[in-house]
Amino acid sequence: MKTQQDIKYIKRCFTLAKKGQGSVSPNPLVGAVIIKNGKVIGEGWHKEYGKAHAEVNAFNSAKEDVSGATLYVNLEPCCHTNKSTPPCVPLIISKKIRRVVIGNEDPNPEVSGKGTARLRSAGIEVMTGVCADEGIEMNRFFFNYIKKGLPYVILKIAQSLDGKIGISRQNQTWMTGEESRKFVHQMRAQCDAVLVGANTVRVDNPRLTVRQAKGKNPLKVVIDGNLSIPMNSAVLQSGDANGTLIFTCKGNDSKKVLNLESRGIEVIECDSEYPNKIDLLTVLKILGKRKIISLFVEGGQSIFSQFIQENIFDEIIILQAPVIIGRGISAFQKEYKNNLDLRKIGNLGIDTKIVLRRLKK
Amino acid sequence: MKTQQDIKYIKRCFTLAKKGQGSVSPNPLVGAVIIKNGKVIGEGWHKEYGKAHAEVNAFNSAKEDVSGATLYVNLEPCCHTNKSTPPCVPLIISKKIRRVVIGNEDPNPEVSGKGTARLRSAGIEVMTGVCADEGIEMNRFFFNYIKKGLPYVILKIAQSLDGKIGISRQNQTWMTGEESRKFVHQMRAQCDAVLVGANTVRVDNPRLTVRQAKGKNPLKVVIDGNLSIPMNSAVLQSGDANGTLIFTCKGNDSKKVLNLESRGIEVIECDSEYPNKIDLLTVLKILGKRKIISLFVEGGQSIFSQFIQENIFDEIIILQAPVIIGRGISAFQKEYKNNLDLRKIGNLGIDTKIVLRRLKK
Repeated sequence: MKTQQDIKYIKRCFTLAKKGQGSVSPNPLVGAVIIKNGKVIGEGWHKEYGKAHAEVNAFNSAKEDVSGATLYVNLEPCCHTNKSTPPCVPLIISKKIRRVVIGNEDPNPEVSGKGTARLRSAGIEVMTGVCADEGIEMNRFFFNYIKKGLPYVILKIAQSLDGKIGISRQNQTWMTGEESRKFVHQMRAQCDAVLVGANTVRVDNPRLTVRQAKGKNPLKVVIDGNLSIPMNSAVLQSGDANGTLIFTCKGNDSKKVLNLESRGIEVIECDSEYPNKIDLLTVLKILGKRKIISLFVEGGQSIFSQFIQENIFDEIIILQAPVIIGRGISAFQKEYKNNLDLRKIGNLGIDTKIVLRRLKK
Repeated sequence: MKTQQDIKYIKRCFTLAKKGQGSVSPNPLVGAVIIKNGKVIGEGWHKEYGKAHAEVNAFNSAKEDVSGATLYVNLEPCCHTNKSTPPCVPLIISKKIRRVVIGNEDPNPEVSGKGTARLRSAGIEVMTGVCADEGIEMNRFFFNYIKKGLPYVILKIAQSLDGKIGISRQNQTWMTGEESRKFVHQMRAQCDAVLVGANTVRVDNPRLTVRQAKGKNPLKVVIDGNLSIPMNSAVLQSGDANGTLIFTCKGNDSKKVLNLESRGIEVIECDSEYPNKIDLLTVLKILGKRKIISLFVEGGQSIFSQFIQENIFDEIIILQAPVIIGRGISAFQKEYKNNLDLRKIGNLGIDTKIVLRRLKK
């Protein structure tokens, strides 16, 4: 039986888990709480990829004997050993935990259900599925990645009230306010990679780094079919560890490729069915193989349009400024045949934020 | 001193007042509550234009002696006599009310401050300005009308996520859902008049009546510079008491004018500076003289654009459907030079509703 206490402590696990945002990918966000005699005696979360799991950190934080306690953890404890840290299930058993309450079963087929089975066979009472939807929502990048091997794709569209992302393809148009800008930097810090098209590099010349939020810079991905972006583009100058990755078509200026590579920028030359056009599903597959589980797409029109037409996006975030542009360009060149699922509406200062999801068939 | 009780009962006045929505214009929405020994002993609201005021209805509802009671009313009681109902101030005095708590002073210069002064000189304790902003918001049509003599203009824009109101000027495009449609009918019932351009009549052929909400039909206003709408348009068929009013330029087909007039449709022929173009401020002035205090504008692009360019609108309501249209037409042909004030964000079923106001200089 699930109690109000169970819900309360799983929600506490979520709060703890989110402290790992931006640091644990491609691992999921996990928090753990240890309760004994109705009192919190230990808490922990997964802090960094390759480092201790939430359960271990919770046990380490406990200042009294945990035997007989209840362990809350938002994701099924692991029991597989082909990874960088020891499995948590044997540890939980050895600590003589009496009851384990779990948010979501691990979607990873190597773990799913096996961790709980092992705990149960050791005589531990186990409950799963507490706040399951909320857990999947929080770890949607991870769940999507385990299922598809591809990054979760978020299209971020900053537009006017009348749906214009700019006055033309040649001019930068800044519309949204300070709060929206901060939100974009937070999203860059939370996502593994950020992607833009060559025209956005030419017109907006973004750095794509995290400056107005805490967190590490994402991998910067540029889609540039004919390798046309200027060598002095800001995105080529950052020199940070997560670097820049350019996807271009085969057969472009090989000197420019070498020049870019000599500056530490990786260039991936792709086969292309249409001249100068990069297949974005190929891009997602390559990023997926590199364990990029989330991709924040910042424009422009042709990139947004391709993601929509190929139906390979997961979420759209519209940041709508209270301005009217009149004539200008919109985010999409063609219609999208399906409806979208409205998920959240709110404001970011003077702007409206609208979050929508692709309806999965 | 304003107490929590005062706020509570003025808010109750708002709730009562709103029951008059759609029936009291050009009068304001007014509710009244009578409290004696901490108990509600009477309530009333202004139900219909030309009929008893809220205070009178509250007194009539009282089942015990009101002498010594406190009267709450969201608008300053009237003391002028050049109107259809007797003034409320003498009545309040004769009822031996001890204290009167008022939301807003009446903006009408014939009344403003005079009602409260008269009450005070009769020895009644008076407090004003309780929940004043909320009161102005609720009666914004009325306050705007008293100040400017013009209707409060609301532009209702139903659009896609990417800001398209249709795929072309020639095709009807239905995007928003059932909840939005109901909301539009509620707004028609709350507003004195609804306005559309000739192209909207041709393409969408709306009836502009109230069917999916309770309330009376608004006056239907069509802007048709060259008198081009088909004689079988739905807006010409309704035959309801509030009728249809067409603004057209001088010099159009006089037979068509006569034909329309013979069907009970009023045609106003205006001087025009540009061919086939009606000056919308002139339209607002004419409507204002007819005591139309609120105007709900339902399209299309050229009408929205004119209101924006001439800066003669008060509010924009965007109903944004979760669909992507790609190529198509937007609400506005040109930019609006000023920012707008974001007031409300919410959802109407699957659609997003965004309410913005013009920033007054």
